[in-house]
Amino acid sequence: MNDTQRKTYDALCDHLRDTSRLEAVGAIIGWDEQTKMPSAAGPYRAEQMALLAGITHERHVDPKIGEWLDELEAALGADDPDWRTSTDDIPVVVRLARRDYDRRVKVPGDLVESLTMACVRGQQIWAAAREADDFQAFRPALEEIVKLKREEAEAIGYDDTPYDALLDEFEPGAKTTEVAALLADLRDRLVPLVAAIADSERRCDQTILTRKIPADRQAAFGEEVSRAMGFDFERGRIDTTTHPFCTTLGPADCRITTRYDESFWAGSLYGTMHESGHGMYEQGLPEAFYGLPLRECASLGVHESQSRLWENMVGRSRAFWEHFLPSAKRHFGSPFDDVTVDSIYFAVNDVRASLIRVEADEATYNLHIMIRFELEKEMLEGTLSPADLPDAWNERYEGYLGVRPPTDREGVLQDIHWSGGLIGYFPTYTLGNLVAAQLFEKAREDLGDIDAQIAAGDLAPLRDWLRANVHRSGSRLPADRLVEHVTGRPLSDDPMLDHLQKKLGPLYGIS
Amino acid sequence: MNDTQRKTYDALCDHLRDTSRLEAVGAIIGWDEQTKMPSAAGPYRAEQMALLAGITHERHVDPKIGEWLDELEAALGADDPDWRTSTDDIPVVVRLARRDYDRRVKVPGDLVESLTMACVRGQQIWAAAREADDFQAFRPALEEIVKLKREEAEAIGYDDTPYDALLDEFEPGAKTTEVAALLADLRDRLVPLVAAIADSERRCDQTILTRKIPADRQAAFGEEVSRAMGFDFERGRIDTTTHPFCTTLGPADCRITTRYDESFWAGSLYGTMHESGHGMYEQGLPEAFYGLPLRECASLGVHESQSRLWENMVGRSRAFWEHFLPSAKRHFGSPFDDVTVDSIYFAVNDVRASLIRVEADEATYNLHIMIRFELEKEMLEGTLSPADLPDAWNERYEGYLGVRPPTDREGVLQDIHWSGGLIGYFPTYTLGNLVAAQLFEKAREDLGDIDAQIAAGDLAPLRDWLRANVHRSGSRLPADRLVEHVTGRPLSDDPMLDHLQKKLGPLYGIS
Repeated sequence: MNDTQRKTYDALCDHLRDTSRLEAVGAIIGWDEQTKMPSAAGPYRAEQMALLAGITHERHVDPKIGEWLDELEAALGADDPDWRTSTDDIPVVVRLARRDYDRRVKVPGDLVESLTMACVRGQQIWAAAREADDFQAFRPALEEIVKLKREEAEAIGYDDTPYDALLDEFEPGAKTTEVAALLADLRDRLVPLVAAIADSERRCDQTILTRKIPADRQAAFGEEVSRAMGFDFERGRIDTTTHPFCTTLGPADCRITTRYDESFWAGSLYGTMHESGHGMYEQGLPEAFYGLPLRECASLGVHESQSRLWENMVGRSRAFWEHFLPSAKRHFGSPFDDVTVDSIYFAVNDVRASLIRVEADEATYNLHIMIRFELEKEMLEGTLSPADLPDAWNERYEGYLGVRPPTDREGVLQDIHWSGGLIGYFPTYTLGNLVAAQLFEKAREDLGDIDAQIAAGDLAPLRDWLRANVHRSGSRLPADRLVEHVTGRPLSDDPMLDHLQKKLGPLYGIS
Repeated sequence: MNDTQRKTYDALCDHLRDTSRLEAVGAIIGWDEQTKMPSAAGPYRAEQMALLAGITHERHVDPKIGEWLDELEAALGADDPDWRTSTDDIPVVVRLARRDYDRRVKVPGDLVESLTMACVRGQQIWAAAREADDFQAFRPALEEIVKLKREEAEAIGYDDTPYDALLDEFEPGAKTTEVAALLADLRDRLVPLVAAIADSERRCDQTILTRKIPADRQAAFGEEVSRAMGFDFERGRIDTTTHPFCTTLGPADCRITTRYDESFWAGSLYGTMHESGHGMYEQGLPEAFYGLPLRECASLGVHESQSRLWENMVGRSRAFWEHFLPSAKRHFGSPFDDVTVDSIYFAVNDVRASLIRVEADEATYNLHIMIRFELEKEMLEGTLSPADLPDAWNERYEGYLGVRPPTDREGVLQDIHWSGGLIGYFPTYTLGNLVAAQLFEKAREDLGDIDAQIAAGDLAPLRDWLRANVHRSGSRLPADRLVEHVTGRPLSDDPMLDHLQKKLGPLYGIS
C-alpha cells in the first residue's frame, strides 16, 4: 500500500471508530433505560434512541465507505492475490467493512423503516398477547414480520434458502443446510439419551434449588463467582433487570445484568455466570481494534459458547461445587446446612422434559432450539403459515420432548425473538453449546487436570486459555475457521454428546 | 406571520428540539460517568462526550439557523415594533435562539472540542487529586482550562473584562461590575452581623450535627423530605456521588445526587433538599416547550434561588423542624433521643467560620463565594497564576473568614467547578441566595401564615406558588425582569439581610 492508500485506510478507520463511539452512546442510553431510568421518561428516551439510530445508520451507508473500499480492495488485490483469505489486520478490516456495508446498502431505507415499526409494534402486541394467552392477537403482527423478513432476505440475496440470508447476520458465512444437518444429528442422538434418563429411577433432591435465599446474599455469592471467573469489575459492573443481558458501552465498559428470585437462587447464579462469560469475551476482545469490525465477536454462536462454557461446563461441574459449596454455605446460611457436593451437583444437573426453554437443562435445551429453528425456517420459506404455528409447535414438543403445552403462553408465545424480528437467531444458541463443548474438550487436553484446577478455585488457566485462543482473535477468523484453528477439527456434536453422556450416565445410572 | 414564516418557525423548532434530544443524550452519558461508570472507562467516555459535543455544536451553529432567524425577525418586526420586549411565545423563542446562536458562532469548533475534552479529563484528574490532596497533580489541567476559557471569552467578546463574557453564559445580561457591587454591599453588611455573632456567648449543641447515623437511614429520611417538598420520583431519581448535582436528561427525567457522611447527617439532608429544589424547578418548567430555549431556567441565579429557598428558608426554619423532627427521630433512632425542636433549630443555624463551602452556614456562605469570585476573575484576567492559587486561596480565607485550610483538599481542591470549566458560575450562588430571600419574602406576603403551613408539613402552597410564579415562566422573562415582575421591585440584598437578622438575632441574643 502506498501513502495515499494508507490515508484512505485511516479515513475508513476513523469513520468506523466514530460510528462505533455513537453506537456505544446508544448502548449507554439503552442500558440506562433498562436499569435506571425513571418510569415516566420512556417516550422521550425512545425519541432519543430513534434519532441516534438514524444518525448512525446514515454513517453506516455513507457512499464514501463504498468508494474507500473500492480503492482499498484494488490496492490489496494488486499487492497479494490471496488477500481475501489473509488474516492480516488490513485485509480483515477491509473484508469485514465490505460485508457490513454491502448488507446494509442492499436493504432499502423504507424496508428498514417498515421492519423497525413492525418489530416495535410486534413486541408490544406480543407482550400483551402472551399476557392474555391469545395467539390470534399476535398472528397478524407475526405474519407481517415474516413477510418483511422475507423481503429483507430477498434484498440481501442467498443461494439456497432465504433463511441463509438471515442466519448470515448472526453466524457470518454459515449455511442453513449445514446447520440443519448438525442440529438434526444432535437431535437424533439426544432423544434416546433423554428417554433413557426419563426411564431412570434415580432422582435428585430438587428442593435444593428452591430454598429461600435473600437477594443480597445471592448477589454477594454471584459476584464472588464472577470475580473468580475473571470478570473485570474495573471495566464492568452488574445490575438487576427483569431480563438479564450483557451490553458493551466502550472498550473498558461492559455491563451485565441478572435477576434475583428468592425462591430460585440457581437462576441468579447461573444467569450471572452466563452473562459473565459473555462479558469476559467482550472484555477480552483485542482492545487496539476497538471501533473496528475486527474487535467484534466471531459470531453469536461463538459468543454464546463463552457464556455456556462457564455456565454449564464449569458451573454445573462437580469440581465447581467442591470449591464453591463452602462459600455458598457461608453466604446462604442455614438453608444450605444439609447440602452436600453430591446433592447439589445432581440437583443442578437435573434433566427432565419441560415446556420453557430458558428453564431447560443442558440436555433438553437443544431440543427446544431445534423446534424453533425448524418452525422459523418453514415460516420463512412459506411451507408453514403463521396461522398453523401453534399446532405445529405443540406437535413438535410432543414428538421431541414428550410434553404438550397446555397453553400458548407456555408454548409458542414464550419467546420474545420473533416479535422483534429475530429470525435466524435461535440456532446460535445450540451452535454455542456445541462450540463450548468442543472448546472445553480441547482446553482439557491443553491444560492438564482442569477438574483439579476448578476444584482448587483456580479458574485462571481456563480463562487465560480462552482469552488467548478465542477472545484475542476477535473476528479475525470467521467462526468455523476459528473452531477448526483452535480445536484442530471442524465443529461437531461429538464433544457435546460425549460431555453429556459422561456427566449424566453416572448420575442417572445409564450407560 | 404568514404560512411560509410559520413553516420557517416550525423548522427552527424541529431543529432545536433534535439538538436538545442529542444534548440530553450527552447529559445521560455524563450522569452515568459520575454515578455508575466503571473506573477504567473514563478515557473512551471522554471521546464519546467530545464527539457528541462536536455534533451538537455543529447543529447549534448551523447557518440555516441564522437564515431562519433573519427571516423570522424581519417578519416579527413587520408585525409588531415592540416584538423585542414581547413575552409571547414566538418572539421569546426567536430572541433566545438568536442570543444562543450569536454566542456560539463566535466560538470556533476546535476550541469547543478542546474545552470539552479538557473539562472531562479535568474532572477525572481533579477527583483523583482531591482524593490524594495533591494540587500539583491538578495544576496542569487547571492551567489548560483557564487558558481555553480565556480564549473562549476573547472569541465571544466583552466590554470591560473577559469575565463579563463568561458570567453572561450563566446570568444572561448580568455585568461583572454590577454583580461585584452587589456582593460588596452584602459583605459590608454581613461582616458586622457575623462579628456580633462571634462575640455572642450563646452557642448551640453542635454535637447534634455529628451524631453517627447510618447512610441508609439518612437516605430514607432525605427521600421522605424530598417527596414532601414535591420532587417527583416518577420523573426523577436520587443517587450517590462525591459532589452532589442535579441534571436533566429529558422532559420527564431529572436526576439529583447527594452524599452520605455517617458523622454528618445534615450534609446529606440539606444536600438532598438543595438538589430537590433544583430538580423541582426543572420538573416545573413548561413541558410543552421542551427542547426550545423557552423551557430553560431564567438564569443560574434563579436556579440557585430554588435550591437555597428550600434548603435555607424552609429547611433551616423552626417550622420545618416542628414537623420533621418526629420523623427524623423515627429514622435516626437513639442518637436523636434528646434532640428538641429548639436544639436542632439552633444547631442547623450555627454560624461560624469554616473551610468547606457546601457545609457553610447561611451567613458566612457568601464570603466563601466572594473568595472564589475574586480568584477566578483574577485567574481569567491573568493577574493570578494557577500555580499561585493555593497560597492566594489560603490567604483570602485567613483574611475574610479568619481560618486557614490545613490541606488543599479542605481548600482549593474542594469544588468541582473549575475542573469542569465552570468559571463565572460562582457568583450565581450568592445571587441565588438574594433571589431566594426576596421570593420567600413575597411568598410570605401572598400565602398568609407560611410558617403554620410548613409546621403542619404542608409544603404544597409554597411549591405551587413557586411553580406558578417562577417555574412556569421558564426563560420567558430574563432573571432581573422575573424578580421584579414577581416581587414588585429590583433585586436587592435587603430581604436576605432582613431574613438573617430576624433569624440570628434572637438565636444569638443580638439586635
